[in-house]
Amino acid sequence: MTDRHVWKLARRPVGDIADGDLVYTTEAMPVPGPGQFVLRVIYLSLDPTNRIWMSDQEQYMPPVEIGAGMRGGVCGRVAASNKDGVNVGDLYAGLGEWADYILTDGTGLARLPELPGITLAESFGTLGLVGPTAYFGLLDIGKPQPGETIVVSAAAGGVGQVVGQIGKIKGCKVIGIAGGKAKCDYVVNELGFDACIDYKSQDVGKELDRLAPEGVDINFEQVGGKIMETVLARMKLFGRIPLCGMISQYNDIDGTEPPGIWTMMLMRRLTVRGFIVTDFMPRFGEAAMEMAGWMMTGKLKTRQDIRKGLEHAAETVKDLYSGGNFGKLLVEVTPP
Amino acid sequence: MTDRHVWKLARRPVGDIADGDLVYTTEAMPVPGPGQFVLRVIYLSLDPTNRIWMSDQEQYMPPVEIGAGMRGGVCGRVAASNKDGVNVGDLYAGLGEWADYILTDGTGLARLPELPGITLAESFGTLGLVGPTAYFGLLDIGKPQPGETIVVSAAAGGVGQVVGQIGKIKGCKVIGIAGGKAKCDYVVNELGFDACIDYKSQDVGKELDRLAPEGVDINFEQVGGKIMETVLARMKLFGRIPLCGMISQYNDIDGTEPPGIWTMMLMRRLTVRGFIVTDFMPRFGEAAMEMAGWMMTGKLKTRQDIRKGLEHAAETVKDLYSGGNFGKLLVEVTPP
Repeated sequence: MTDRHVWKLARRPVGDIADGDLVYTTEAMPVPGPGQFVLRVIYLSLDPTNRIWMSDQEQYMPPVEIGAGMRGGVCGRVAASNKDGVNVGDLYAGLGEWADYILTDGTGLARLPELPGITLAESFGTLGLVGPTAYFGLLDIGKPQPGETIVVSAAAGGVGQVVGQIGKIKGCKVIGIAGGKAKCDYVVNELGFDACIDYKSQDVGKELDRLAPEGVDINFEQVGGKIMETVLARMKLFGRIPLCGMISQYNDIDGTEPPGIWTMMLMRRLTVRGFIVTDFMPRFGEAAMEMAGWMMTGKLKTRQDIRKGLEHAAETVKDLYSGGNFGKLLVEVTPP
Repeated sequence: MTDRHVWKLARRPVGDIADGDLVYTTEAMPVPGPGQFVLRVIYLSLDPTNRIWMSDQEQYMPPVEIGAGMRGGVCGRVAASNKDGVNVGDLYAGLGEWADYILTDGTGLARLPELPGITLAESFGTLGLVGPTAYFGLLDIGKPQPGETIVVSAAAGGVGQVVGQIGKIKGCKVIGIAGGKAKCDYVVNELGFDACIDYKSQDVGKELDRLAPEGVDINFEQVGGKIMETVLARMKLFGRIPLCGMISQYNDIDGTEPPGIWTMMLMRRLTVRGFIVTDFMPRFGEAAMEMAGWMMTGKLKTRQDIRKGLEHAAETVKDLYSGGNFGKLLVEVTPP
């Protein structure tokens, strides 16, 4: 080998990725300087987030620069080393380039353990990146309880297949959504999902109503758009939505418009939680006690907007929607 | 007193509450039967949620029935009792009717303590319902840390004024949004907010950029619509949005259309959390170990979709957005 090959970002895609956005180039094989090594890439991981990195919209890492090698997840073995502790043949995985040989100082890469009975493709593909996404998204954010109902979109994809199986391990009912009979059959028959809806040939809402008349506790969201809205409309009280991806939206990103609110919630890792105060009823006493203390010591002041006369209540209440009240609106019905 | 007065729901409002939706009626003063008592209402609380109860859209309590007394928060003293342990003069607060005298068995009511130096209006108005809303919404959901920036809409309202002051007690920078100079001056000068934006005369986005160039950690959301979108666009990474109300949306509810997604998230107390797996990087080992165990025991299977040839990568990646892959998409760049 005297050359290396690398895909470079020639321009930012507008809409779908087009021919010429990425160009395949040939360069002289790099020679590692002090502290560097060359990785021979075995597997390059392609992920929906690649499209985001190609754009210069708001995102969670710097965008790939025009003219630079395209960023991607890689695993491979050290081909040449000029770095202490790194030996030819060592297995590494992490972030690299879309290339067959990569010159690196090791930043963004970590040793990949070789596990008995697990192929390198499984180890890298599952345990490397998509596995942790499924694992933390479902367990830490979704917090599945036995008997709950989980819906996972892109069910046959890298993350989706793991989410569903972890859901089953945790004793949940798991319904996948995927495109086409082959994928649906696979997640049900091979992976043990309870059911799978083929969004290409079935009415997702109708099927959800049939398969999960009880509603959905966890929607592991990867797709966004219409399918997301269909699932959201069927969420149960106190449902959780780990927002992991917005695949359906990425190709709309052309840098001319701000990203949609869901994409932004994902990029900035925002948490939105709806609440009704009565959910906290058992702890009202605790709150009242601490607040009463603040009030008595002058740290908490409040203003009431007290209107006399029950007979005006129907008129008075309208002020709340036009901003006509100033402070907590109370009607004095009879004298205190 | 030989009569009681009560507002009854005559019909469900369409859009804004209109004359005739509620009717003011007079009835004979009730006489408490066994286990019942009559409460003389001192204060009736008017709250944005009243509009929701008047509708029959999806909500967190049964809607008020047509012809029934309108539901509302009340406090008052027992005027007549036929129930053990309930004495004339006792102070109660909770859910009742828009009425001057209420016949009740005590369901939904609780004793209201009388606290030195705190008026009944403060005790009921603040410690009763809006206080806990502010307290749990900000502390349990918003989780403010010293030095963080909080934005609270409807800042001079019942909940907003308490949110802002608790934010200051917790060492945060607090920016209110309210309508009109008087309200803005009040929350800054009387309550100690750091700043307040008058949405009626100022450009909320521009003011936020000036007052909080660092971005917003917590948006305590009560209003929805344009103002919410303006704040959301300025959230920092890992920001939190306690979703407490959607005042701007309630009058659009006429039962003919499903509620918007934000209203639904509120009513069902959903949690949406965006995440990027790299946030969990320090815990990857833990996830990989548990998943490897599941893989070795056959509980977790995965499928890779392995394509040979780096030179096809730019074409291959497109499959992710059209559903053309089946399993985790990997490019085999060089032989394993």
